Amino acid sequence: MKQEQFLSVVDRDEAERRFRAALEPLGPLGVEEVALAGALGRVLAEDIASPVDVPGFDRSNMDGFAVRAEDTYGASEQAPRRLRCLPEPVVMGVLPVGEVTEGTAMAIPTGGVVPRGADAVVMVEHTRLDGDHVLVEKPVTPGRAITWAGTDIAQGEVVLRAFDVLSSRETGVLAAMGVDRVGVVRRPRVAILSTGDEIIRPGTPPLPGRIYDSNQVILADAVREAGGEPVPCGITPDAPEAVRAALLDALAVADLVLLSGGTSKGPGDLNVQVLAEVLAPPGILAHGVALKPGKPLCLAASGRKGVVVLPGFPTSAIFTFHEFVAPVLRILAGRARPARLHGGEADGARTWARLPVSLGSDGGRTEYVLVRLTEDAEGAAIAYPIGKGSGSVTTWSHADGYFVIPREVERVEAGERVEILPVAGVRPRRVDLVIIGSHCVGLDVVLARLAQRGVSSKLIAVGSEGGLAAVRRGECDAAGVHLYDARTDSYNTPFLEGGLVLVPGYGRLQGVVFRAGDARFEGREAAEAVRAAAQTPGVVMINRNRGSGTRALVELLLEGTRPAGYAVEASSHHAIGAAVAQGRADFGVAIDIVARERGLGFLPVREERFDLVVAASRVERPGVRALIDELASEEVRAALRGRGLLA
Amino acid sequence: MKQEQFLSVVDRDEAERRFRAALEPLGPLGVEEVALAGALGRVLAEDIASPVDVPGFDRSNMDGFAVRAEDTYGASEQAPRRLRCLPEPVVMGVLPVGEVTEGTAMAIPTGGVVPRGADAVVMVEHTRLDGDHVLVEKPVTPGRAITWAGTDIAQGEVVLRAFDVLSSRETGVLAAMGVDRVGVVRRPRVAILSTGDEIIRPGTPPLPGRIYDSNQVILADAVREAGGEPVPCGITPDAPEAVRAALLDALAVADLVLLSGGTSKGPGDLNVQVLAEVLAPPGILAHGVALKPGKPLCLAASGRKGVVVLPGFPTSAIFTFHEFVAPVLRILAGRARPARLHGGEADGARTWARLPVSLGSDGGRTEYVLVRLTEDAEGAAIAYPIGKGSGSVTTWSHADGYFVIPREVERVEAGERVEILPVAGVRPRRVDLVIIGSHCVGLDVVLARLAQRGVSSKLIAVGSEGGLAAVRRGECDAAGVHLYDARTDSYNTPFLEGGLVLVPGYGRLQGVVFRAGDARFEGREAAEAVRAAAQTPGVVMINRNRGSGTRALVELLLEGTRPAGYAVEASSHHAIGAAVAQGRADFGVAIDIVARERGLGFLPVREERFDLVVAASRVERPGVRALIDELASEEVRAALRGRGLLA
Repeated sequence: MKQEQFLSVVDRDEAERRFRAALEPLGPLGVEEVALAGALGRVLAEDIASPVDVPGFDRSNMDGFAVRAEDTYGASEQAPRRLRCLPEPVVMGVLPVGEVTEGTAMAIPTGGVVPRGADAVVMVEHTRLDGDHVLVEKPVTPGRAITWAGTDIAQGEVVLRAFDVLSSRETGVLAAMGVDRVGVVRRPRVAILSTGDEIIRPGTPPLPGRIYDSNQVILADAVREAGGEPVPCGITPDAPEAVRAALLDALAVADLVLLSGGTSKGPGDLNVQVLAEVLAPPGILAHGVALKPGKPLCLAASGRKGVVVLPGFPTSAIFTFHEFVAPVLRILAGRARPARLHGGEADGARTWARLPVSLGSDGGRTEYVLVRLTEDAEGAAIAYPIGKGSGSVTTWSHADGYFVIPREVERVEAGERVEILPVAGVRPRRVDLVIIGSHCVGLDVVLARLAQRGVSSKLIAVGSEGGLAAVRRGECDAAGVHLYDARTDSYNTPFLEGGLVLVPGYGRLQGVVFRAGDARFEGREAAEAVRAAAQTPGVVMINRNRGSGTRALVELLLEGTRPAGYAVEASSHHAIGAAVAQGRADFGVAIDIVARERGLGFLPVREERFDLVVAASRVERPGVRALIDELASEEVRAALRGRGLLA
Repeated sequence: MKQEQFLSVVDRDEAERRFRAALEPLGPLGVEEVALAGALGRVLAEDIASPVDVPGFDRSNMDGFAVRAEDTYGASEQAPRRLRCLPEPVVMGVLPVGEVTEGTAMAIPTGGVVPRGADAVVMVEHTRLDGDHVLVEKPVTPGRAITWAGTDIAQGEVVLRAFDVLSSRETGVLAAMGVDRVGVVRRPRVAILSTGDEIIRPGTPPLPGRIYDSNQVILADAVREAGGEPVPCGITPDAPEAVRAALLDALAVADLVLLSGGTSKGPGDLNVQVLAEVLAPPGILAHGVALKPGKPLCLAASGRKGVVVLPGFPTSAIFTFHEFVAPVLRILAGRARPARLHGGEADGARTWARLPVSLGSDGGRTEYVLVRLTEDAEGAAIAYPIGKGSGSVTTWSHADGYFVIPREVERVEAGERVEILPVAGVRPRRVDLVIIGSHCVGLDVVLARLAQRGVSSKLIAVGSEGGLAAVRRGECDAAGVHLYDARTDSYNTPFLEGGLVLVPGYGRLQGVVFRAGDARFEGREAAEAVRAAAQTPGVVMINRNRGSGTRALVELLLEGTRPAGYAVEASSHHAIGAAVAQGRADFGVAIDIVARERGLGFLPVREERFDLVVAASRVERPGVRALIDELASEEVRAALRGRGLLA
């Protein structure tokens, strides 16, 4: 019999429409009163009209003398006006006792109450004392150096509006009006349950086959960022009673319930079944949505309380959270406009970027592609897709934004412009230095050092060849490359042409890694060991991705043979090390550091050069300058040697 | 004898140089370990290399069957490859017991561990079950639907760097690596003391001559925003022993000490004297800085601990905080780069704007002018200076940014371009509707209603004439105006020309306000009462600012006379009400609402029209459309009538 379809998939917009409709009327939650000292970042629940005038009295802005302006007319340094000083000066915080009358003046400090009769203040610098008289050397106009009561804020004036978010700018205004408690929108409580027998809590030892629960943390913090209050509910195993009990607890305390994991058709899929039993109408609204990542999403509601089962894979979970849940949360928290005047979120400025590569899509569903951004020589944005997939947690954390491939589009060509949307409201940061190309642990050392110096950087790992192409197209400041040229038997320099400059990096030892003690490799010469292994049944290799400098070396060693595992391409030195250490493969090619860090055996093949290639036109940019300086510094070279590199 | 000069004033940059030099070496404070669940927003203290591979095993990305890829080659729907199903499927979170050998397949769920021997997963949709066999209908390549161990994050890979700020993007990555405690930079503790006999705590009843302590709240929250931890130290009276005791306490607990108030030469000035006695060397570094606002600033240090006496006036205090203290705080908190590669702060993108008015400066000191921004028809920024001065707390809270008038410049002309710097890192928000012109309480009603509908707005109060000029220059969406034309005896319509459209507003009753019971006004006819008052010695009026619609009405009533107080110009209806209520003036002209809210007497003069004027080219903008709709809605008109307006 044919396996039944995954689930009956709903269009993205239709899924959202059903979810929103179930939650209507959707608006900010109720009011709670908080102390002003704890109100930073909260959302005002109501308009605030000032209960008082600010300032509450006519206030002097200067140290000087309160006078009647007309008594100073005609005054000059040569012909000062002579006024009698009243015996009692104005004292801070106290209503003046005397009154300024014709021909008199009263000393007054900055912030003092202007006495009755006075309509201006002469600053002390324009006066001289002469016994009990003051000589005024400059005339003043009425109102001079006085802030009238209520000028800053008038009693009854609406100073702040409902749904203003309180920053230090607003809390100061509230304090100035004497307000010390304020009504704010209650934060939506969001229960977060992780489900799955394979999930373990961070801080516990790793276990084979298990993964750490990253969704609980990332969702809790994303809820905080959207203005909500997370209620972490821990990890529930894949057992109906356990999920049922946890769900009932969550529904009892929260305004919104999130589960993650268990949404596919696999053995662990029971969250949705439990929802179907437990939820009050309308219950499940959509299970399976035509989008990527995020297809297994389940949207539901129990009464007007939203319940969402997010996919277990981190990037899918957080992406669908931001697409479907965060907008609802922001409305509940009073942080989003119920209606959208423009196409997007408030302040969600959009940018366009050019794709440097072609991308296929399955079609028939909305596909979201997370990207890292860089700029070409003209400052136009370039969007590099991040290829690690929805199971990756770093895809999300590295993304500068994403673009949408609509369901009817099956391919986006290199050079096309796409509209970049912000990820979780995070705006792409402009960095001082963009490096595209091969990654190396030595580069980590240099970039860490630059970060300490205050130079920010972004590294987009696409391999040596991709990096060289990017730096040629002017898409980055530098490319990390280790490309071998057999004709000249040299590294990197033969590939420079058309205005590219080589910044000398360091050497690193490439070789064959294997599990220590494996007699098929231990103590042998690398080329000979590989030659023998390639002909030994049962020996499995692991290959590197095409376009990487190491791949070229692998091909040299294999001399045209294709041992088992040849087709499996890992994308980093670390991944080679992991595959060999865990027994998935028996050998691979990587740098010696990886062998050392994982306790693997190592047969040296050759020292290769890892250099940086820079466009001549960018050499004088501050970020590039700093990179060149640091690479040449003894401090960095010592640190590189400390990591086993040849510097 | 000549009054001694205020204080010996230091150049702005020199003052900053001395302060920074005293704190050197200046860098992030030490490390403290916090739970990951409380790490959001904190600053990483060190590079984080992953302790594990993520995923920790070769993981299936699909529900399906783990196979050897070569066993599927040539498979099709018509000619499926038949593989024997191994009896034990892969179970989530458990290492598989069996091994996939030639001609076999093992059922596997999404997230399951790929069993030994398999190098690909066939998705369930491409299979059929046939007893204890599975029919594969589509070939797969090696690696298909598998994420190899360490692909996302490899053990030893540097994933996050020191001084990364932890958002949900980063905390999720830490959790995925099993990290549940993390070393972050300790938050600098900043003691905040308000000093002054005139200062009272918000939440207590207002007292004559006293002002609420807004600086403590605004500084505490600004410290939080800069990554510090405020230590509020309350209000200290102007007494040397009290200030000394508070200062010693503060120095004992804090990394940085802020005092506000008491920095001028007035009677309350003793903070600086106490500093001179109490601080360890180097002590006072600068007292009096050539800048406006902020001249009375005092920068000091006790050892390497910064001590700053900020001016008491709110805008001066917060501005000097952001200029001199916040950058230091961000360095201590690990949030700023020690060196600046570019001219400005890390992400402080700068913008240029055109000044619509000319501005004089005193020269000889750096002057900062806070502005509100709008845009002309071409989208170019226009900067309206906020004129309320450094004593104002709302100046700061309304500002979209500021520009600098260098010490050698004495005047900036209308039309000049100025470089706008962000206020406290706050980027100007784009709003849906910009209104420039006269302010009215009725406008508050409409804008509050629009805010509820999700339409954001900005109101720049410059009076009717200024608003009309702004809307003509295309600098705003609408202008609030109430301008009387004597020739036609009508409001507003005579001033429309050149593509301006009138949006009907409402009527409001202008009249003479006076203290209830004042026999000189009570029960009389307005024009006659003003005529009499103008000739009665001892009666004081309060005027409105030139360019306001009400000023024109005042001039009509005065018939050319200039009673006492004529030269004193208040800038709002509320300010007129306050002046009369507090006895500073005996009468003025304002709308009846103000009289009602303050319990003042009121003699009606005329019903005037408050309308909105819109450029014809902007009528279809969503914000303008919403304004027009709301003004016409019965709901808003009822609310306007509820505030006593004629709608």
